[in-house]
Amino acid sequence: MKKVVVLLSGGLDSTVAAYIARKDIGVKGELYTLTAMYGQTHKKETRHAIEQSVLLEAKGHTILPLPLDMIGGSSLFGGKEIPESEVEGIPSTWVPQRNSIFLALAFAYAETVGADLVYTGFNIKDYSGYPDCRPEFVEQIQKALNLASKQFVETGKEIGIVCPLMHKTKAEIVEIGRTLFVPFEKTWSCYKGERRACGVCASCRIRLEAFAKVGIVDPVEYSCR
Amino acid sequence: MKKVVVLLSGGLDSTVAAYIARKDIGVKGELYTLTAMYGQTHKKETRHAIEQSVLLEAKGHTILPLPLDMIGGSSLFGGKEIPESEVEGIPSTWVPQRNSIFLALAFAYAETVGADLVYTGFNIKDYSGYPDCRPEFVEQIQKALNLASKQFVETGKEIGIVCPLMHKTKAEIVEIGRTLFVPFEKTWSCYKGERRACGVCASCRIRLEAFAKVGIVDPVEYSCR
Repeated sequence: MKKVVVLLSGGLDSTVAAYIARKDIGVKGELYTLTAMYGQTHKKETRHAIEQSVLLEAKGHTILPLPLDMIGGSSLFGGKEIPESEVEGIPSTWVPQRNSIFLALAFAYAETVGADLVYTGFNIKDYSGYPDCRPEFVEQIQKALNLASKQFVETGKEIGIVCPLMHKTKAEIVEIGRTLFVPFEKTWSCYKGERRACGVCASCRIRLEAFAKVGIVDPVEYSCR
Repeated sequence: MKKVVVLLSGGLDSTVAAYIARKDIGVKGELYTLTAMYGQTHKKETRHAIEQSVLLEAKGHTILPLPLDMIGGSSLFGGKEIPESEVEGIPSTWVPQRNSIFLALAFAYAETVGADLVYTGFNIKDYSGYPDCRPEFVEQIQKALNLASKQFVETGKEIGIVCPLMHKTKAEIVEIGRTLFVPFEKTWSCYKGERRACGVCASCRIRLEAFAKVGIVDPVEYSCR
């Protein structure tokens, strides 16, 4: 029986990745989701991570309080302006080492439940400014985390990181989600985390463009429409 | 001016490492300490991490709540017996990916404060059963975390992990601490975290043997003496 851990934020990419994981392991496979409440302004997404975990029939769902805003360094913790368009280089929404921290936590979770794969929604196409989404980073941290993994040290068997969306555009991700019947209304992308999605932050823009390209209506409520 | 982050638990090794860091950077250097309250039974050590940070004149001290006991997998979270002697292989006190998580957090902290070194008390001599204390792991995760570091991506300048105690015996660590005037009474090693140190868990035994070898009295109160 296959067991996997999914890093699930409640955003579009990680949710689609979770449905891919469910398809890969089948109904009998055990799926565990890990969600960190890391101090992000848009903590609203966590509610959707919980709802999706129920729909995905996750065997376990760990929601970890992890106040990275105490360390700071990102506009996602409030105080700084959220960019409304894509920028050159690393944007202010960058959270230092977020994916390193999440992957290390996911490997810990995988070790305790006996999973040997960690699924993520990492993607370089539309957020190329985030260095911790790049394949070279994923490859390197997989090596490092396995060196600190009980299973690998004792048996030589690696825990693998799976990034099914790495090279997909946001439109392709929406298209894959559609074929997997992902309930998009239970995903959240807006960085601002208000009652309705703002529709103007970089994250909303990319999402709206993708839905438009695929030719379906994004069921999430937007305050600008 | 030198800026460093120290992973400081309040235990003997990390505290001695912090005093080495202070010596390395001089009185004008900026020292930042990072302590995680990770659900360990012996959370008592955190109080000492705070006291030592004050004595070390840390420019910043982040105490991060991080309930790894929600993920589980270690006798340090309670419920399982703490071993009273050293065991073959990985002991039950192993916390999955603890150092990976802590190092990723330390790199995030280093990025926000502009530090380029992370000091740790990692040591393979006396706890050789912990895979995340080994030099090969440290080397690999340093590479991985730099690939997710803004400074490295933008300037090619690495953040380094410094493990001054890696190959020292516990007695050598006590000796180094003595020459640096480390207030040992403000360090905590006992896994049980009761009012007095138990003196019989593996961690207490190794510490007591080390003090005996150096020929000084461990100022910590033990319930067995």
